[in-house]
Amino acid sequence: MSEPLNVFEYESLAAAKLSDGAYAFYAGGANDELTLRENVEAYRHWHLRPRVLRDVADVGTSVTILGREISLPVLVAPMAYQRAAHPDGEVAMAHAAREAGTIMCHSTFATATPAEVAATGVERWFQLYVPRDEGLKREFCVQARELGFSALVVTVDLPAVGRRERDLRSGWSVPPELIVPSVGLRGLKPREYVAMVSPSVTWDDVESLASAAGLPVVLKGILTAEDAVLACEHGAAGIVVSNHGARQLDGVAATIDVLPEVVDAVAGRTEVLFDGGIRRGTDVVKALALGASAVLAGRAPLWGLAVAGQGGARHVLELLRAELELALQLLGCRSPADLTRDHVRRAPLA
Amino acid sequence: MSEPLNVFEYESLAAAKLSDGAYAFYAGGANDELTLRENVEAYRHWHLRPRVLRDVADVGTSVTILGREISLPVLVAPMAYQRAAHPDGEVAMAHAAREAGTIMCHSTFATATPAEVAATGVERWFQLYVPRDEGLKREFCVQARELGFSALVVTVDLPAVGRRERDLRSGWSVPPELIVPSVGLRGLKPREYVAMVSPSVTWDDVESLASAAGLPVVLKGILTAEDAVLACEHGAAGIVVSNHGARQLDGVAATIDVLPEVVDAVAGRTEVLFDGGIRRGTDVVKALALGASAVLAGRAPLWGLAVAGQGGARHVLELLRAELELALQLLGCRSPADLTRDHVRRAPLA
Amino acid sequence: MSEPLNVFEYESLAAAKLSDGAYAFYAGGANDELTLRENVEAYRHWHLRPRVLRDVADVGTSVTILGREISLPVLVAPMAYQRAAHPDGEVAMAHAAREAGTIMCHSTFATATPAEVAATGVERWFQLYVPRDEGLKREFCVQARELGFSALVVTVDLPAVGRRERDLRSGWSVPPELIVPSVGLRGLKPREYVAMVSPSVTWDDVESLASAAGLPVVLKGILTAEDAVLACEHGAAGIVVSNHGARQLDGVAATIDVLPEVVDAVAGRTEVLFDGGIRRGTDVVKALALGASAVLAGRAPLWGLAVAGQGGARHVLELLRAELELALQLLGCRSPADLTRDHVRRAPLA
Amino acid sequence: MSEPLNVFEYESLAAAKLSDGAYAFYAGGANDELTLRENVEAYRHWHLRPRVLRDVADVGTSVTILGREISLPVLVAPMAYQRAAHPDGEVAMAHAAREAGTIMCHSTFATATPAEVAATGVERWFQLYVPRDEGLKREFCVQARELGFSALVVTVDLPAVGRRERDLRSGWSVPPELIVPSVGLRGLKPREYVAMVSPSVTWDDVESLASAAGLPVVLKGILTAEDAVLACEHGAAGIVVSNHGARQLDGVAATIDVLPEVVDAVAGRTEVLFDGGIRRGTDVVKALALGASAVLAGRAPLWGLAVAGQGGARHVLELLRAELELALQLLGCRSPADLTRDHVRRAPLA
Repeated sequence: MSEPLNVFEYESLAAAKLSDGAYAFYAGGANDELTLRENVEAYRHWHLRPRVLRDVADVGTSVTILGREISLPVLVAPMAYQRAAHPDGEVAMAHAAREAGTIMCHSTFATATPAEVAATGVERWFQLYVPRDEGLKREFCVQARELGFSALVVTVDLPAVGRRERDLRSGWSVPPELIVPSVGLRGLKPREYVAMVSPSVTWDDVESLASAAGLPVVLKGILTAEDAVLACEHGAAGIVVSNHGARQLDGVAATIDVLPEVVDAVAGRTEVLFDGGIRRGTDVVKALALGASAVLAGRAPLWGLAVAGQGGARHVLELLRAELELALQLLGCRSPADLTRDHVRRAPLA
Repeated sequence: MSEPLNVFEYESLAAAKLSDGAYAFYAGGANDELTLRENVEAYRHWHLRPRVLRDVADVGTSVTILGREISLPVLVAPMAYQRAAHPDGEVAMAHAAREAGTIMCHSTFATATPAEVAATGVERWFQLYVPRDEGLKREFCVQARELGFSALVVTVDLPAVGRRERDLRSGWSVPPELIVPSVGLRGLKPREYVAMVSPSVTWDDVESLASAAGLPVVLKGILTAEDAVLACEHGAAGIVVSNHGARQLDGVAATIDVLPEVVDAVAGRTEVLFDGGIRRGTDVVKALALGASAVLAGRAPLWGLAVAGQGGARHVLELLRAELELALQLLGCRSPADLTRDHVRRAPLA
Repeated sequence: MSEPLNVFEYESLAAAKLSDGAYAFYAGGANDELTLRENVEAYRHWHLRPRVLRDVADVGTSVTILGREISLPVLVAPMAYQRAAHPDGEVAMAHAAREAGTIMCHSTFATATPAEVAATGVERWFQLYVPRDEGLKREFCVQARELGFSALVVTVDLPAVGRRERDLRSGWSVPPELIVPSVGLRGLKPREYVAMVSPSVTWDDVESLASAAGLPVVLKGILTAEDAVLACEHGAAGIVVSNHGARQLDGVAATIDVLPEVVDAVAGRTEVLFDGGIRRGTDVVKALALGASAVLAGRAPLWGLAVAGQGGARHVLELLRAELELALQLLGCRSPADLTRDHVRRAPLA
Repeated sequence: MSEPLNVFEYESLAAAKLSDGAYAFYAGGANDELTLRENVEAYRHWHLRPRVLRDVADVGTSVTILGREISLPVLVAPMAYQRAAHPDGEVAMAHAAREAGTIMCHSTFATATPAEVAATGVERWFQLYVPRDEGLKREFCVQARELGFSALVVTVDLPAVGRRERDLRSGWSVPPELIVPSVGLRGLKPREYVAMVSPSVTWDDVESLASAAGLPVVLKGILTAEDAVLACEHGAAGIVVSNHGARQLDGVAATIDVLPEVVDAVAGRTEVLFDGGIRRGTDVVKALALGASAVLAGRAPLWGLAVAGQGGARHVLELLRAELELALQLLGCRSPADLTRDHVRRAPLA
């Protein structure tokens, strides 16, 4: 078996390597998985518009997010239980992100401690599921700041956990040898861990979270212009247009299809990030052209991690970088900053 | 075999358990079954728009229909010959509806008497196919009122019976051990029972039916703005946007696609109910967001009944409730009343 | 094998009964057969809008075409070489049309003489491919009038014969025992017969044909508003919106999709007929609702003829009548005259 | 095996005859090959609108391109390494083009010399990938003029080579017995040859190339109105709307779908040519009706070459001519000049 050529091949290899239950957990989505498919397929309905005869000998992929330059506008999305995908888990992923010059988002339900991730030296953001327990909430905020995480990514689309029927069928639990240190528990089913998340978080909590952590807050899970405006009004430093990898409410639009309305509503007032269905450099380019500052990729680097640990995750990120770089060149752009909305157009109806 | 996870699994089990002819009768639609498929698939073309950061710790599913509160906005649609699906038939279905806190619509072609259904204590509506025979019509109206049915659901889309080719192929008849007490006949083919229905009912009959029964009249089978306006003008207490489960005229639109025009035309003057293709809580949510007060589900609870009698029907209703509740939470709503048209949007074209 | 339930079943039986080459000749279309498929499938994109609570106890299917009432608005389209489908050929078809109360269009390339068809007593139109030979043209016109044909259907979409690759593959020829009496030749390939058709007919010929025949002229093969206007200006008594059963130019629209522009352009100045892809009564209803006075069906009755001769063709016509009648009732119409454009609507995009 | 009936059959035969790697090289596209499929399928979404009753006895296919009349508006697109498809390679292709009365575009990466192609006497254009090396660039320009090439086709959409995963999988190299005389190298992988192409060509180079060659410059690879306007402003004699056979940036639109915006932007100021997905005469007709002066076909004649050398390539061109001629007749046109935008229409949505 030669080196995988693209993310899809990594997914195939990961599917073969992981247990059925673990693969189903990572790959699956809510209910009928309509949105899961749409997240990936919707990119087809945005056509690229390449400009020619520009000097693109030198092309770079750096962007600046929340004031810091990163060399790859593909962040590692927060993902739970990464040691169930590979023994090196989040630590390997963090090293891969560091090597790729991007940001690692550390999940509340990581199977490594924030300190372990911090020790890799990666640029890091702390993903927070606001817990029902006030003390735990404060502890997470303090921990994030003290361990050098540079932003708090508050997930806002999980007041209750989505119905993921693949998990219900497989009955998969996090392997008991793994601990989720933030909550100190072992061997639960995914949805059982998530029971600690508060269903009562509101807009009023956004500013208090920012001040408790002393960190910029990025709200992850915005899907409407209306909520994007509220995010601006409540002082969010950024938002992530995300449908939680299609794992929460089946029947929401593909994220690439709602990105334009969110970007328009924000009108530059806050940073717009994006995730959902990223498999190709051209997917990244489309999101950036539609107004995202950077994207988060979850499953893509996870398949790399599952297949080959740190090296696999790193290779996936480098594949995405290479594809992004090539797409920029073929669009006549020397950097992500050169991308404009005119580089994409809604596909004609067919 | 573990407990079914969703309505689709119930349908598979029911298909395996029922005779081919009985399954074909319940599952089938008119002619090429184009509308049958569209009824289910059209939901995909309405995307949900979730609002975040709202306190949804307490969520409820109650709605008020014709002045009465029910705890689940999913009524049991009128369906004929339920004892052919399970020996306990309409009585089991009525108990399931009662336990679920919803309304049972009793079919003219039930294989139980209205009295049997009334005895369950369920909140109940009487579905009327206006018969050719005037005496029989009066008898049905009197019976409905005297047995405590709280509305008369007049089916208006069956001036002739649709051509259901699955039935023509199977030759299925209602098993001769079953009687349809309203007409006192046994062992006929479905379309033979329906021959008693009048093809000559007109708008002029609506008010006389209401006064004959002394009950609010709900007109079931409205598919156009024009007829919705006429229903308001003729004093209907409610209408059901319905294409008869795609069993009458193949080639009509999916009901979810005509709901908006009907809701707009009615403009609040009468109660708008809805049926067609409901398989998921998200389908219910879409119909409510587009302006229905509640939906009717037919095949869904019927598959439950076929698989496991009262318990199966009840479980289907509870699955729909759980899915509805979750969908409400993930949309940022605490009750059906919080749903607005902004929670759905026509999908971008693909 | 029980009696076929619909036209699709007739086609399956005909495919099994006919030789591969003969079936390919009748069933096939031009080139990639894109239009062939679209002709049938395009109906799905027009939804019916049924009106309820109208007295439809008495429903009829009669229409008046060119001043004559026919009891079924489904004419038998002109089709060549019908004796290759069944030994009784055009004579059986004419009897079937007569029994069904409709019009038989007699093809220039019939394998029966116009006199044989006239002898059946059927209401008949003479389909004319204008030949290169002037004498033959005059002969056809005189023959048509003298044998009691009541209209001349001039096919205008065959200045050259379409490329039908199924025929090129099969190499099928009209069986040598059959003669095409109009041209007096035997055993040719279809496209060889058609070589006699003139590629030089123009609008200037329309009036001279009408006067040569002393008959109203119907132009068959109009697909644009522009040509529909010209047809009105050149005194056509009627036009047939047709793409020649998708056998001429692959890539033209389905006829149902161009019907509205033609009807609008004509604005009542001439009779608009229609053919293409008619398989169901609901197809007929859609064409009539969009403004056609009647439709022509070709392959549908031909499959009947192939399967069971006159009785089969008759049964197909009666199936279409029954389906049409039922569709009218379910739309709240008592006759074709009650149909309006509001009974159809372009399907929402999906 | 009888003579192939159409281009698709030629492709099947070529696929069987060529090595897997060579077939993959010619047939493949970039990344997920979405645009590869769209290039071919997008024609379906443009419907033809035939006009009838015009005298089309005499039909011709000649057009005038850059002031010269050619008898077939289907040029042979520049394609690399044709001797890997057939030993006679570019020389056979040039003879086929000459016999068909059209233009041969000679690729920078041809496996024949420009002189060999010139010796065939074919009307010829020189396709130029602007090399990094200035001397080589001058040499190409001089060579083109001196060997009687009548235009310089500058490919502008390859500042970097697209990612063609079929090639990465197959590992195919140009067979070592073949030489690419322009660069004097043997046995490389396709992407290795292309490394000589400059990524730094800009609009400023267009006029200097024209004057260096003393030839009209045609810019191949324009996909936007914006670049079409720039081409006019920089004195291009023509442009080719092309996405490089979908081999460069996956996710760009089918060329037929961007042709209208380019034609509108050009507004007659320069010659618009077109390539992408041409398989049928009706594809040619659609491009011409939308405003192209002629089309380039690449894979189509290449499959002919692969199957049967010069005769195969010639047959493919003659098939396209025959299909084009027939399509013109059936549209009521006597020549390409008669085509207008009214002969096509965007298909209704389905």
